[in-house]
Amino acid sequence: MNSFGRKFKVSIFGESHGVNIGATIDGTPPGIPLCENDFANDLDRRKPNAKGTTSRKETDTPTIVSGVFNGYTTGAPITILFQNNNTISNDYKNLAQHPRPSHADFVAGVKYKGFNDPRGGGHFSGRITLTLVAAGVIAKKILDQFGVNIEAQIVSIAGVDIDNTNPKTEQIIEHKIEQALANCDSLGGVVKCTAKGVKVGIGEPFFDSVESRISHIIFAIPAVKAIEFGEGFNIANMNGSDANDTIINAKGTTKTNHNGGVVGGIANGNDITFKVAIKPTPSIAKPQPTFNLESQKIENLEIKGRHDACITLRTPVIIEAAAAIAIADLYSI
Amino acid sequence: MNSFGRKFKVSIFGESHGVNIGATIDGTPPGIPLCENDFANDLDRRKPNAKGTTSRKETDTPTIVSGVFNGYTTGAPITILFQNNNTISNDYKNLAQHPRPSHADFVAGVKYKGFNDPRGGGHFSGRITLTLVAAGVIAKKILDQFGVNIEAQIVSIAGVDIDNTNPKTEQIIEHKIEQALANCDSLGGVVKCTAKGVKVGIGEPFFDSVESRISHIIFAIPAVKAIEFGEGFNIANMNGSDANDTIINAKGTTKTNHNGGVVGGIANGNDITFKVAIKPTPSIAKPQPTFNLESQKIENLEIKGRHDACITLRTPVIIEAAAAIAIADLYSI
Amino acid sequence: MNSFGRKFKVSIFGESHGVNIGATIDGTPPGIPLCENDFANDLDRRKPNAKGTTSRKETDTPTIVSGVFNGYTTGAPITILFQNNNTISNDYKNLAQHPRPSHADFVAGVKYKGFNDPRGGGHFSGRITLTLVAAGVIAKKILDQFGVNIEAQIVSIAGVDIDNTNPKTEQIIEHKIEQALANCDSLGGVVKCTAKGVKVGIGEPFFDSVESRISHIIFAIPAVKAIEFGEGFNIANMNGSDANDTIINAKGTTKTNHNGGVVGGIANGNDITFKVAIKPTPSIAKPQPTFNLESQKIENLEIKGRHDACITLRTPVIIEAAAAIAIADLYSI
Amino acid sequence: MNSFGRKFKVSIFGESHGVNIGATIDGTPPGIPLCENDFANDLDRRKPNAKGTTSRKETDTPTIVSGVFNGYTTGAPITILFQNNNTISNDYKNLAQHPRPSHADFVAGVKYKGFNDPRGGGHFSGRITLTLVAAGVIAKKILDQFGVNIEAQIVSIAGVDIDNTNPKTEQIIEHKIEQALANCDSLGGVVKCTAKGVKVGIGEPFFDSVESRISHIIFAIPAVKAIEFGEGFNIANMNGSDANDTIINAKGTTKTNHNGGVVGGIANGNDITFKVAIKPTPSIAKPQPTFNLESQKIENLEIKGRHDACITLRTPVIIEAAAAIAIADLYSI
Repeated sequence: MNSFGRKFKVSIFGESHGVNIGATIDGTPPGIPLCENDFANDLDRRKPNAKGTTSRKETDTPTIVSGVFNGYTTGAPITILFQNNNTISNDYKNLAQHPRPSHADFVAGVKYKGFNDPRGGGHFSGRITLTLVAAGVIAKKILDQFGVNIEAQIVSIAGVDIDNTNPKTEQIIEHKIEQALANCDSLGGVVKCTAKGVKVGIGEPFFDSVESRISHIIFAIPAVKAIEFGEGFNIANMNGSDANDTIINAKGTTKTNHNGGVVGGIANGNDITFKVAIKPTPSIAKPQPTFNLESQKIENLEIKGRHDACITLRTPVIIEAAAAIAIADLYSI
Repeated sequence: MNSFGRKFKVSIFGESHGVNIGATIDGTPPGIPLCENDFANDLDRRKPNAKGTTSRKETDTPTIVSGVFNGYTTGAPITILFQNNNTISNDYKNLAQHPRPSHADFVAGVKYKGFNDPRGGGHFSGRITLTLVAAGVIAKKILDQFGVNIEAQIVSIAGVDIDNTNPKTEQIIEHKIEQALANCDSLGGVVKCTAKGVKVGIGEPFFDSVESRISHIIFAIPAVKAIEFGEGFNIANMNGSDANDTIINAKGTTKTNHNGGVVGGIANGNDITFKVAIKPTPSIAKPQPTFNLESQKIENLEIKGRHDACITLRTPVIIEAAAAIAIADLYSI
Repeated sequence: MNSFGRKFKVSIFGESHGVNIGATIDGTPPGIPLCENDFANDLDRRKPNAKGTTSRKETDTPTIVSGVFNGYTTGAPITILFQNNNTISNDYKNLAQHPRPSHADFVAGVKYKGFNDPRGGGHFSGRITLTLVAAGVIAKKILDQFGVNIEAQIVSIAGVDIDNTNPKTEQIIEHKIEQALANCDSLGGVVKCTAKGVKVGIGEPFFDSVESRISHIIFAIPAVKAIEFGEGFNIANMNGSDANDTIINAKGTTKTNHNGGVVGGIANGNDITFKVAIKPTPSIAKPQPTFNLESQKIENLEIKGRHDACITLRTPVIIEAAAAIAIADLYSI
Repeated sequence: MNSFGRKFKVSIFGESHGVNIGATIDGTPPGIPLCENDFANDLDRRKPNAKGTTSRKETDTPTIVSGVFNGYTTGAPITILFQNNNTISNDYKNLAQHPRPSHADFVAGVKYKGFNDPRGGGHFSGRITLTLVAAGVIAKKILDQFGVNIEAQIVSIAGVDIDNTNPKTEQIIEHKIEQALANCDSLGGVVKCTAKGVKVGIGEPFFDSVESRISHIIFAIPAVKAIEFGEGFNIANMNGSDANDTIINAKGTTKTNHNGGVVGGIANGNDITFKVAIKPTPSIAKPQPTFNLESQKIENLEIKGRHDACITLRTPVIIEAAAAIAIADLYSI
């Protein structure tokens, strides 16, 4: 259940405050150059650097323990480990009894009959996305060989569109984040992802459509609540004659790309584009009411621990990784 | 690849103008009463009855050829067949050379090297959703035993919200459809689906989240371009303190349901709610430019055949079926 | 559960006395010539023709209902149906209460809580192997393109080795079968299968070894109780220096083939060889004691119905089909 | 590909001389007591202690890095790591050019285009079975809750049956091993495994038969060349009336157990019994001819490194583990 992929297969394990978190990537072709430094850039992009991100700092140094020999992938499963160093576990003691609203505390307690590791969210922690990013680095290396490039960027924070031509945008958003921090609150955002160079024919009709596979893994990222391809929800308001993307050459290039590069579930050779909604982190310091299973009353909860006021800032590289994994798998089968 | 599910597994086969289309449903528990009449209601709901739907009329009579004995499921795979009777195949002759924009003609030709069955869209046809609806009937019967009920309804057509308290809504939409028909054009819409009674704990963290599994199968439905759970894209604009759903009792009932009944990928016992965007049917009679692979020029295409001006009208039961299949599978594992 | 294969995937359905039995073959490449006549030869080989085989005669005419267009595979799932015509169901009425020894009657009743179809063994019937043979025909067509050829033949019946150079062998075996028929008893046998032309490198270390995949599907054939590759059980008695197969050229050809063409789980380019033990049909007319669940006593059972005295005679083509399916799948991934 | 199981799923990784080898076990129910000491007994049984086993000594200390909290399984994936300490890698330098007969050197080189890790057999090493034994410990703990007990023991070495009532047997076998050591040769053997207490109904007809699942994982163990259930190959020589196992009570107990506890692919409540042939280790010190890819000639190879003269001595616990994994998975689905 903690695996994704048919042939290029990613399995993840670990808890926020456990010994290690890690990923095993099976199905990587042999002969791809790979070393621990290759992960640095993407792992850095996921790190909490900006204002509005958690104060928990981890080195996030990957150790490749298998599947690589003399600097090249061998074709055997690649396991990558990370240590959890900067853990403060006493912050989480009461959450099983007094579960955070809209967090996994309550459902995990019921599902695992109280045996789940509650420290730092345990296996539900956003920290586990570190392993996805690591697997994504390998997926991107594979896709690179096919000329596929994937990039994600934030398109809005707290409802404010990122407009790179307007210098005030950044100020407005920074101000919003400062306000959220001041209020012990959190903010959401929207991320757009584009995969360029995906060849015509990738994907399958129905259950293994490009959209099915990408959405499946994108919703594996905690805090994602929506995904739309191409025009997405807007297309529901368009006429067919406007929504249709005119094919203009024998390669299948289209004049517009309202369908986000996928028709009939199959990549049509144009950019695959999709947007993802990231909800505001549910873990906020602001006191909020929630049922206390011990006292059997609704009581205010003040969440301790170190959390992100705007997790969206850290998600683009995770979304890229997830898309890369899904597309690398579609290429492999 | 044409299968969905881990334990309750649905496999589909068939082409729009082939001998049969059908589904095999494996993993159904023994002892569920099932006969061919049980399919009538849902199959009828999918039929093109309303204005704005295709003039191809099929009886859509299911034949159960295995897995049922003396009126009960046996535990063995259930195969259900439908015949294709009302086919007019010469409508589709030229589409391989002159592919319809935003339809699968071009990608299918490339992917299958010209060997795909182009008649009526072949295996890419919306007709195959008939088999999903049939599988959904069985999924609903299973879920019924757990007290789970799934209902989908249209929330907007062509950007007009369905407001049942406003008698004019229906007129406005009917007028929009008439206009689309007059213009040989098509319309999209949005469908909302609600699953009531899903127990706390269904779903898995990360890759087998409730949202991952549901979105996976929902995007298997042709014409779907977006999905959002709970508040969906709106949640990206909310503060955490507003977005969080206060837990009000020991069963996990929440005061609001901005998260659409899923947190950390796991059902939290509240209604699972999601919305789906359906694009306007790409097959429109209105002449539209598209590249002709034979003449190597962009030329106007007038699509023959019988198509839906507003396929959204027929999708709620398909979306219900897809959700039921995904949730029945999550219950089974 | 009723499916085999990762990419070339075979799903089977049906009961001995139901409407249809059939198979869906997903993952067949497009462009392979295929028509219903192509199945005739292998289906004939499975038919009960010889003395010692059942008197139930079925036409076993395949109908391809999907996945083939204009005489070629399309790349979409291929479903093949067979009708059950020659059924005499009242023979099986009492077997649920008075289960046949070493047959599935008892276990099926427990597993499916009495809802299983008991007629003719239901979904447990050897008749379902007809669908395997059909799928095997497609697998063989795929393998043919890679120069792979698979052949199985009987090596012994009832302990008597088939010695083609000794004209008396046939007589001895014929006599054994006549005796078994006279005694209302049944006989077992051993079948050897050889796959020639399998390229070096097919298969995976550990769980997806060639031996794992082949044995998995071979044990799906009812009545199979053992499998050995190359020297099989004999190799346990050999010294390493004798058992090792000397590599004699750069293609990996070996002087001997004690390992049956597989080392480390991977095909080594030599013939893949294995032997399979087929038990005597448990359904014999001879009265035999078995517990009666109704009377709660051990009572003699006289099995009615039409059964094979020596099912081994019909199995070579089934074993070929199973091996072809497994190897075609290993080629496809 | 390096995974086994549908719900109780074991994934393995690592190379003989890499940083770590390990297994991830997904699908373990929460609440099972588990600590690192629990592995000691089975890991010890796999260790090379006896005469005739390798001189490579490893501590084989397991580290549980995830999935266990406060001494209990959490329901999240359990990853167990082992270090490789006692490695002497220069022994393996030439094997890529001058491949060992009947070992994976040649096939691995072709399959992975020379990128495989050749040190100590790399990912093909028998050392990886350590991870299977670890996963087996967890499987056994799960099965223990269902009253299932699995035990394997050697039944013959080099063709000599182990007869516990005859004190000379041990001497004869010890002498055989001494001879093999003296001759720089190796010996094979046969192991029998019995699973007691498996409930009626486990397993599925056809592809997921008990025999299919067990044989699949048993052939994942390096050096296994054959498997037989119950009477195995002998049953091919029996009459049906002798081979059939008379049911003697309402629980399905049978008088004999020629079918090894499985009929129609389903457990019948009696002991599941099977025998496995283990070939003599192909790595022998005795010079043996094999093709040299560099010189393009057949030349004598003297294998360096530390190998087992009789690997069979170490396999019973591995076979137990494999059977436990397969049966635990069948229980879980």
